This record gives sequence, C-alpha cells and structure tokens, in this order.
Amino acid sequence: MLRFENDYSEGCFQEILDEFIKTNMEQTPGYRLDKYCEDAANKIKKACHSENIDVHFLVGGTQANMTVLDAILRPHQGVISPLLGHINVHEAGAIEGRGHKVIAISSGKKLDEEAKLSSESLDLYLTDFFNIGDWHKAQPGAVYISQPTERGALYTKNELIAIKSVCNKFNLPLYLDGARLSYALACDENDVQLEDLAKYTDIFYIGGTKCGAMFGEAICFCNEKFNRDFHCIAKHNGAVIAKGRLLGIQFGVLFSNDLYVDKSRDAYKFAIRIKKAFERKGINFISNSYTNQQFPILTKSQQELIRNNDISFNIECSIDEEKDATRFCTNWATKEEAIKKLEKIISNL
Amino acid sequence: MLRFENDYSEGCFQEILDEFIKTNMEQTPGYRLDKYCEDAANKIKKACHSENIDVHFLVGGTQANMTVLDAILRPHQGVISPLLGHINVHEAGAIEGRGHKVIAISSGKKLDEEAKLSSESLDLYLTDFFNIGDWHKAQPGAVYISQPTERGALYTKNELIAIKSVCNKFNLPLYLDGARLSYALACDENDVQLEDLAKYTDIFYIGGTKCGAMFGEAICFCNEKFNRDFHCIAKHNGAVIAKGRLLGIQFGVLFSNDLYVDKSRDAYKFAIRIKKAFERKGINFISNSYTNQQFPILTKSQQELIRNNDISFNIECSIDEEKDATRFCTNWATKEEAIKKLEKIISNL
Amino acid sequence: MLRFENDYSEGCFQEILDEFIKTNMEQTPGYRLDKYCEDAANKIKKACHSENIDVHFLVGGTQANMTVLDAILRPHQGVISPLLGHINVHEAGAIEGRGHKVIAISSGKKLDEEAKLSSESLDLYLTDFFNIGDWHKAQPGAVYISQPTERGALYTKNELIAIKSVCNKFNLPLYLDGARLSYALACDENDVQLEDLAKYTDIFYIGGTKCGAMFGEAICFCNEKFNRDFHCIAKHNGAVIAKGRLLGIQFGVLFSNDLYVDKSRDAYKFAIRIKKAFERKGINFISNSYTNQQFPILTKSQQELIRNNDISFNIECSIDEEKDATRFCTNWATKEEAIKKLEKIISNL
Amino acid sequence: MLRFENDYSEGCFQEILDEFIKTNMEQTPGYRLDKYCEDAANKIKKACHSENIDVHFLVGGTQANMTVLDAILRPHQGVISPLLGHINVHEAGAIEGRGHKVIAISSGKKLDEEAKLSSESLDLYLTDFFNIGDWHKAQPGAVYISQPTERGALYTKNELIAIKSVCNKFNLPLYLDGARLSYALACDENDVQLEDLAKYTDIFYIGGTKCGAMFGEAICFCNEKFNRDFHCIAKHNGAVIAKGRLLGIQFGVLFSNDLYVDKSRDAYKFAIRIKKAFERKGINFISNSYTNQQFPILTKSQQELIRNNDISFNIECSIDEEKDATRFCTNWATKEEAIKKLEKIISNL
Repeated sequence: MLRFENDYSEGCFQEILDEFIKTNMEQTPGYRLDKYCEDAANKIKKACHSENIDVHFLVGGTQANMTVLDAILRPHQGVISPLLGHINVHEAGAIEGRGHKVIAISSGKKLDEEAKLSSESLDLYLTDFFNIGDWHKAQPGAVYISQPTERGALYTKNELIAIKSVCNKFNLPLYLDGARLSYALACDENDVQLEDLAKYTDIFYIGGTKCGAMFGEAICFCNEKFNRDFHCIAKHNGAVIAKGRLLGIQFGVLFSNDLYVDKSRDAYKFAIRIKKAFERKGINFISNSYTNQQFPILTKSQQELIRNNDISFNIECSIDEEKDATRFCTNWATKEEAIKKLEKIISNL
Repeated sequence: MLRFENDYSEGCFQEILDEFIKTNMEQTPGYRLDKYCEDAANKIKKACHSENIDVHFLVGGTQANMTVLDAILRPHQGVISPLLGHINVHEAGAIEGRGHKVIAISSGKKLDEEAKLSSESLDLYLTDFFNIGDWHKAQPGAVYISQPTERGALYTKNELIAIKSVCNKFNLPLYLDGARLSYALACDENDVQLEDLAKYTDIFYIGGTKCGAMFGEAICFCNEKFNRDFHCIAKHNGAVIAKGRLLGIQFGVLFSNDLYVDKSRDAYKFAIRIKKAFERKGINFISNSYTNQQFPILTKSQQELIRNNDISFNIECSIDEEKDATRFCTNWATKEEAIKKLEKIISNL
Repeated sequence: MLRFENDYSEGCFQEILDEFIKTNMEQTPGYRLDKYCEDAANKIKKACHSENIDVHFLVGGTQANMTVLDAILRPHQGVISPLLGHINVHEAGAIEGRGHKVIAISSGKKLDEEAKLSSESLDLYLTDFFNIGDWHKAQPGAVYISQPTERGALYTKNELIAIKSVCNKFNLPLYLDGARLSYALACDENDVQLEDLAKYTDIFYIGGTKCGAMFGEAICFCNEKFNRDFHCIAKHNGAVIAKGRLLGIQFGVLFSNDLYVDKSRDAYKFAIRIKKAFERKGINFISNSYTNQQFPILTKSQQELIRNNDISFNIECSIDEEKDATRFCTNWATKEEAIKKLEKIISNL
Repeated sequence: MLRFENDYSEGCFQEILDEFIKTNMEQTPGYRLDKYCEDAANKIKKACHSENIDVHFLVGGTQANMTVLDAILRPHQGVISPLLGHINVHEAGAIEGRGHKVIAISSGKKLDEEAKLSSESLDLYLTDFFNIGDWHKAQPGAVYISQPTERGALYTKNELIAIKSVCNKFNLPLYLDGARLSYALACDENDVQLEDLAKYTDIFYIGGTKCGAMFGEAICFCNEKFNRDFHCIAKHNGAVIAKGRLLGIQFGVLFSNDLYVDKSRDAYKFAIRIKKAFERKGINFISNSYTNQQFPILTKSQQELIRNNDISFNIECSIDEEKDATRFCTNWATKEEAIKKLEKIISNL
C-alpha cells in the first residue's frame, strides 16, 4: 500500500539513524544537559540569525502546545486561535486540560479557510473585548497561529508582521506552531524565513516529527519574558524525557547541511503535482494549499477508486452525503514513483 | 437611579428574610444535613412530581455549572453548548478551568439567535463526530442548554424532547441551566413545566440567585447515574458552604405557596411592556425574548438619553460604530412605577 | 440537643440580619462594585492600620484558599503547609484540584502538634530544597499557615516574624488562613493583631463564616504583587457571587463597633472553661488549644455518656481502639447555660 | 568520565537500533495502529501468561503515571503512595497537575525506608478513613507502589498479595510503577514474576527507558474496568506520539529472546559488587537495595575522592552537614571494567 494519509508514516532521516548508532554507547547527563542539546540549540540559533533564543526540546506537537501555553498563560487566561487551529480541533482538549479556554475566532471567511487568522479579525475581536472589559469572560492571554496552517496555507511576512503588531498593541505574546515548518520553508511562494519567526513571534516551535525526525519539536523562546522555569513546567506536564540527548542529536542533524529544508523540497514539489493532477480533473479543494498537505473534495466513488488501487488517504471532513474533503500528504520520504502512480490513478478518476 | 442592568440588584424575598430571622439562633448540623435542606428537597421533588430526584444546593450559577460538569465528564470529554451558552461566554473559562472543552456548536442561525441549540444541528454534529470517530478531538460527554436561553428565548416542550432524544441516541446526558427558570415558568408562552425538566433532562438546576433568593441554585439529578459522590466533588470545587441550611431555608421558602413562580409573573409582564415600548418606537431587538431580559438595539444617542434619565442598563454586544445591543432586565422586585417611568422615557426616544 | 460539634451551627449576628432587612430593596451594582463592599473594605483597612491593602470578599474558606493559591502560584509550584494544615487535610483536594501540590512539612513534633509550622523546620526544608535545586520536584511557591491553627494553637508575634523572615529569605509569599481569626484576636494570650498580619503576611483572610457572619471571608492582599486580576481568577473558580453586596454588608457590620472581636470574647472564655472542666477530670488533650476549639481525648464510654446527655461533638481522630480525640467548639452564639450544662456533665464523667 | 549517576546515560540495545534501521522506510499507520505495536503487545501478553491484558505504550515514566492516574481517578480522588513514591517526590507535581492529591502514607518505619508500602499501614489508613467517612478529605481512589521501590527494595510475592488484598477490601485499584522492572526481574532474591503482576495488580507498567529502550513504557491494564478511552485520555495529556510504531518496535525487541531481563542480569551483579565494596569499607546505606541502584552514605571528603577519579554519582538526600546519601546506578550498558575501576576507588576511600 502507498500511504498518503499523513506525513509521519516512515521513521526518520538516515543521517539521524547514523548518528544514533555512532553515539549509542556514549554516556551523557540526563534530560537536556548534554552536549548534543547544546550543539543543536546553537545550530538553531544560527539558523535563526539570533543569539537571543532559548531553545527547548520536547517530544511531540500537542505536548509542545500544551506545555508552552501552560507556561505562558495565567489561570484565567485563554489563547486565541483560528477556528481550525490544531489546538482547537485536534488535541483532544489538551489545552483545556491545562485549564485554558481556546478562544476560537473566525476570520469571517468560508469555514474551509478558517485555519488562518487575519490581523483584521484579531484586531476587531481584541478591540471589542477590551473596550467592554468584561472580566466574566476568559481573558485573552496569547495568540496562536500555525505556519503552514492546518489547511496548508501560508502567512506572508506582511501578514505575520501585521498579526504581531496587533499582539503588541494588546500586549499579548504570539505563539507559532511550526509542526510542518520545513514544508513552508521549502515552498517557493513562502517569504517567511526562520529569522522572521525569531523576530515576529514571541515563541515558536520547529517541528521535527513530521519533518524528518523520529520525534521531537524544538521550542524557541524569542522573548525572555516567557521561558522562566520552562524545564520544570515541562516536567510537571510529563513532557521531559530522560535521554534528552535523543532530541539534541536529532535536531543537530536536522540543522546540519541545510537538511531540514532541503529534504522537504521534493515533498513540496510532489504535493503540487498531486494538486495539479486533481485540478486537471476539475476537482475542487477545500483549501488552496501551497504545502505538503492537499485537500481535494472527492465523491465516495472517487474515493473508492483510489482506495482500490491500494492508496491510503484521510477524510478531513464531510461535505455532503456524496462528498468528503480528503487529505493527501507527502513528506521528506515520499518517492517519485509513488507520485507517478498516484497521478495516473487520479487521471483515471 | 433605576437599575435595569441585571436581575440581581436587590436582596431577596421578604419571606426569606423572615425565615432567616426566625431560625437564626437554632442549631443545625453543618453542610447539608439539616432539616431545612431536607424539607426544601422534598418540596422541590413534589413540585417536579417525582420522587427520584436527588437535590443538592450550591451558591451560584457558574459554580453550579463548573461542579456539575466536573462531576459528570471524564477527563477527555467536553460539553456541547450553543455558541452563546453561558458556560461558553460568561464564566471566565471556569469549565475549561476544570479541564473540559466547551464544544460550541452553531445552530446555523444568525449569530444573535445562537443561544439556542437545535436538535437538528446537535444531531448533525454528533452523527458526523461519531461517524468519523476521531479520538484526536475532545469527546462530547454531555449537552448543555439553558431555559430560558441567555437571550431570553424558550425551548418548547417538543424542542426539549427532540434534544433529549438526540442525547439518548448518542448516550449523552442532558444538563439544563435554569439560572432564570422562574421567568420561563411565569411566561404565558412557556409549555415546559418543572415535571418536564425532571423527565427530559438528566440534570437541571433551579436558579435561586436571580429569582428571589439571596443566593443559591438547586441542582436536581434526575438520573441516578450522575450524582455519585457529588457532595465530595462540590467540596473539591470549593463549592460547599458550612451553613448549608441557609440554602435549605431559602429554597424552602421559594417552593412554598408557589412563591417561586408567582413572584416572577410581574417581572414577565413588565418585561413584555418594555419590549412593546421599544417596538412602538420601531426599535429592533437582537433576540426575540419572551422573558425578563430584553435586548433592544439602541444608538449611542438613544442610550445617552436613557442614561440621562438616571436609568441603568447593560451593553450586551456591539452592533456597529453607531449602535449596541443593550440589555434591560426586570425581576421579582421590579415595581410598576419603574416600568411606567421607563416606558415614558422610551416613548420620548 | 446542644451542639458543640462545630462553630457554624447558628445563623449570624442579629446586627447583620438587621442590616439585610434595612437594605433589602435597595438596588446596587452586582458583584463587588457596590458601596457596601467599598465601605467594608475601608473599615478593614482601618482595623489593619494600613491603606495599602486590597480587600476581596469570597464565600467560604476552602474557596478562599483554592482561589488565592490559584492566583499566586505558577503551574509547577506547590504550597508549603504544616502536616495538619486545613488545605492538606480537610479540603477534599481542592488545592490539588487547581493543579498544585500541598507540600506538607513536619515540624518534627508529635503528630498531634503538627498543625503549627516552625520557622526552623521551614528554613531547613527550604535550604535543603534550594541547595540541591531539584527541578524534578514540585517547587515551593508560597507558604500557608493558619491563625489560630487547626488545633487551636496560636503563633506568637515573634514566631510570625520569624516565619515571614524565612519566606523573605527564599522570596516566597506568606499566606495566612484566618478562618477562626476572631477567636485568636479575642484570646488573652494572643499578641498578634490585625496590623501585624498586614505587616508580616503577604495575603491573609479574615474569617467570617465561623466568626459571626452567615458566610464570607475577607481576603486581604498586603503585597501588591499578588492581587493582579484576582476578581477574574475568582470568577474562573466559580467563586464570585452575583449579589456581592451581601458580603460587603456582613463585613461592614463585623467591623463596626469592634463586633468582630468583641462577640468572640465569650466564646474564648467558654472554651477555656470547657478545657478546665476536662482537666479537672484528669483528661488529656491532643493539643493545647488556647482558642474556641478544644480537643479532649475521651474513651468510648465517656463519649457515650456525654452523647446520652444530648450533647453533640466531633471525632477529630482515632487514638486507639478505646479512645478518640474529640472536638468541642464554642462560638459567638454559645450561651453560658450551655457551658454550665456541659461542665456539669463533664464533672460526672 | 564514568557515569553512575543514573541508569539512562546511554542510548539503547543495539538490537533496537538494528530494528529501527531495518524498518525505517516502511510505511505504517500512525499512533498505535501498526503491526509493531500489535506484535509487541502480544509478546508482552505472552510474557505475562495472560490474554486479558490491554497494552498501551507511552514515552516516559512521569507521563505514564500522570496519564494512568488521570484515567482511573475521579476528580475528588487522590492516590495513595508511600512517602518516597516517585509520584510524591520526583514528578514536579504532575499528578497534582491533573487535579489529584498524592496521599502519602507512612509505613511507620525510618524515613529512609519509606519507599515501601506495608499492607498493614495501608489497611490501617483505609480502615480509619472509611470508618470516619469524611467527605472533606481527598478520597482514596487508587494505590500506587513501585517494583523495585525508589530505594531499590523489592516487594515479595506475599507482600504484593497482601497489598492487593487490602485494595480489594476497599475496592481500590492497585497500580504498580515498573520503571526499573527489569532490574527486579533479574534479581536473585526476587520472587515476583510478570505473571504475578498481571494477577495481583490492576494496572502496571513495564519500564523501557531505564531498561534498554531509547524511551518508552508499556502500560498493562489487567482489569478491564480501567482502560476505557485510554488512548484519547493519553492524547488529552499530550502523551501520544505520532510514530507509535517506534514504541512497538522497541518493546518488540525487548520482549524477544528474553532480552528484557537477560540484559539486566549483569547490572544486578555489578550493583551488588558496588554494594559489597562499600560494605567492606564499613560504609552504611540509607536503604538496603537489592537492585541496580545503591545508596551509600558518604562524607563530603569521600565524595570528593570519588569525583576526583572522574566518577559521577548523584546526591539522593542530605544526612547532616558532613554526610549525604548518594546514589550509584548500574544499567544494561554498564561494563565490568567500569565496576572494577569503581571497586578500586572505593577500596581506597
């Protein structure tokens, strides 16, 4: 079977395995106090063109979001998120499990585009909120966005700056979820670089799990107001692994020789080929994605045809009784032959 | 100043004060083990035409919602609520503070009517949810509605039965917030009686604070699956008062001689008079309320004119730069002369 | 029956009822924005000889502890408490329910005296803790003590100063639970006045529920670092009552004409008479109490004899198969005739 | 430097790396739905001689404890633990972070032996608790023990049966933390086998992280009352990794060819050699450990001497100004030459 259902079907870059083998019997201190974590942090800081970043490594995306928001929100505060933000939809209530409301705000667009926050709707919401000043409501304490968004779109640099500017106006930190960041960075249309994230967010994380690591996310605190006691807060969240070096080793590899972005370039191109293959058949998408996830709207019989060719994909959401929005993902491990096969199947729909 | 800003501006029924005075130096056991709580519970069961109700008394509405939902939800479960449900909007994230997502679902109506849940949209949401069966999402664990709704509307008996029937289909308890229940029961259009709540909900609470008590809400468990250890869970939530009899005494009075509903009848009539006064001026409402809260949409200058007459009211939400939806409340203590004065002011807008 | 089982068997001071009656039909703003809350806060500040106190009113003791600690602790922090501290023993895990460990430390005394924290054991614990600097442990974020203690003892002014000094050394706020504060203030042996609490704690609360109010506790923030957003955090904890003036009215009365302390003086004297009555029979105590709770150790047959005289009391804890430590309480409402009757019964044990 | 400071200084069994390499580019479904997780679960069930176990894989020990207890406790319940239980001491309040009190009970022994729970003290505590029936206290909802204990001791089979019998008497599940289980199973004195854990606990976990895996713990639900919705609850706790197969692969290897226990046998022997080396010098221990952690009490100068030989170890706790209890760990990766060097250094103390 060829799996396009998600972007974590395989293991990791061979280079990471090699490094695991090489270092396996070395003894290092536990948690994060080893040279590999230090080295990886330094490489990330260099890639971000900034010395003033505090880098922490956690295991997964939901864990990262839960722990960061636990650290930066006060008890009565919630976090603003687009309607389709991962924290609002796909984390089994993990943020609420830490006591915080996810304040989902609409951008006033069609629901299918609601994964993206507009600075205008954010400004409108916050202006209204603080004008009335209602302490009966969960108070906004942070703003959450994802790059790329959960539907594959990208914030432009100008959009990012505009959102950050609204955040500054209301004195709220901006937190960016980069679970699939490598696929944004590898995209031709993208104009937001790592150094921009370091400049225009307060905290962001660089996704490893979906971008070539076995597991792991690198949390970058760009604002020294927010990282206080983070390691202990992570422990409190069950989010610290004993052999912290495993994370250091992986991110050390990801950020050597430009591997992090380079290995995503094919995934990007392959995704665009899938997109075009569906477009050629006149098939619509629930979202105009520029990255490694594509969301064509397929009839039940189209779905069946594809599945009968031993191709797996996901149902993103139901459209009507006849049709669903589906998800096809590529990743760093996708091979061209798989794309060719899929293109052919699509052409026969 | 005449206050129409809320329905808790005054103290309580004189009959309650009388009873406090009469019983003041009696000694009773603490918490809820006194004869007054027992007596009040019996009166409520009688009013509900049911012996199989377990009645508990808490101090306030947010506390009641927080504690009940803490008791009936498992960690990963959320509670379904209309978009404008009190728990979703006005409780400072108290439900999330207990770890549970408020899953706000739209009824597909205009936003201003979103305080009411339709059985159709509930069914649609739940059918979709369990068809896909996504354990990455907060799982629905209960359904929350309010009677009257936060915007003054009423569920009909048929609507209530339809919602309960969807709940049964998906094996979810239905919890009804009756913060202003007396005003629903006093309304001519209403066809949902206490005995219907006992039949068609799993848990509901009878509001005291806004309906004539100093404070207090009577939580009625109509389904024995849900009240287990409730008293300890309340203590765990800081929601148990030492002198529990204060609640028993109050609800004992509220449920004597039909006071609970009778004293709300004027409030209902007065609210309708306010409604008609605004209608006569061609003023629109954000919601078609049948109960003691009315939500006329007023221009800034209309608002100023009213305030200049020493009348207070609330801003419910902003409509545009010129206009806000406002809130005018009556309650058990409202006097006809106040209504006459307000009618006159409105007529001069 | 004569109840000595607790100190909340009756209603409240008659003066409070009078004020409720007088103000009942007045209209005031909700929550805490009324003149009665303002007036009561001013009276408390005056009684504390300090202008720099921010006073908030909540309904009960567990609620007060839970809300204050939720407000002042960060997620990974716990609160240090004596082994027998109310938050560690009698609050159904409410502090833990807010995510925080109660770090119970022993004073190295007999278990029965463990309600009191010694500055030495506190210093030892904190010195050890921060010397090793273990972020795998819940971090101390505040220190909790009670005056009088849960076993009726008193901190002297010097002891309080010593504890505060240790807190300062480790930069931890000191929070004092005054659930029964009036009985400490009414005690001849006591040398800690309200103004000392204002000076040597960061936050303390003045108990109303057990000291003459129907319900209510006045939380005094003496350090401006800790009260930020407290009202919203209280709402988040379901701890805000709509008719906030009820609390203002009660504390306004309590702090008029020295009623708060004056009405506890008899309770103190009566408690000492009970103590002496037991001592005359050679009966031991689990704790040497100076205040309104006395803890004689009684055999099962002694207990039965007392109960047979229609006297109620509590079991504090089991001593062995033959004996329990019991609790006899007096309060502001206790009458001399009750004490005389109890003395007589004790003399016949 | 030779590290004896903990048992997670190295990577993992070479056999695990080999399997990672072999499977790296295979595509599998996410989370836990792959054949490797299924295979590992089957091997574990076989090793436990039981078909009726539901096996789940999580990443780390604190995460496992936090998630299991979140799943099995109701909101007002706490978990009973020995004073030195890992959840009570070393998890940064993670259990409390989920809302639950850790009810630490003493076995009435010297503090240094308090890592072990005795069935007698458990019975005494629970009998007292439920005799008095105090709903003001956090309610016991589960019992937690560790095999081996945090101080290296072992429960005998009879002790385990006795504890389980007390749990049954009070209808409480028994949860056993096996973070270092392989070292218990490899110990000559041990008479508790995997099949006994399956019989006499309700839930236990098989530690991977410290026993040869890179990371990972296998949670075994032996009682079908407790695993309901566990996967979603894990997601809610941020405890699910996308590439679940990584855990399946590792436990598949650990439970092939008896590797799990076999590779711990040397660690056990080496630990006993360290123990004897200290004993020969007349050095005392804070605990009589039979497993891979040894806790000699060393003077500051002894510590310095050892450190000067480039040996690292941990401080377990302070004894007095001159002495600390230290911790020396062996693990599956310890080499005999390291032990020889350490023996020699010790002999020169």
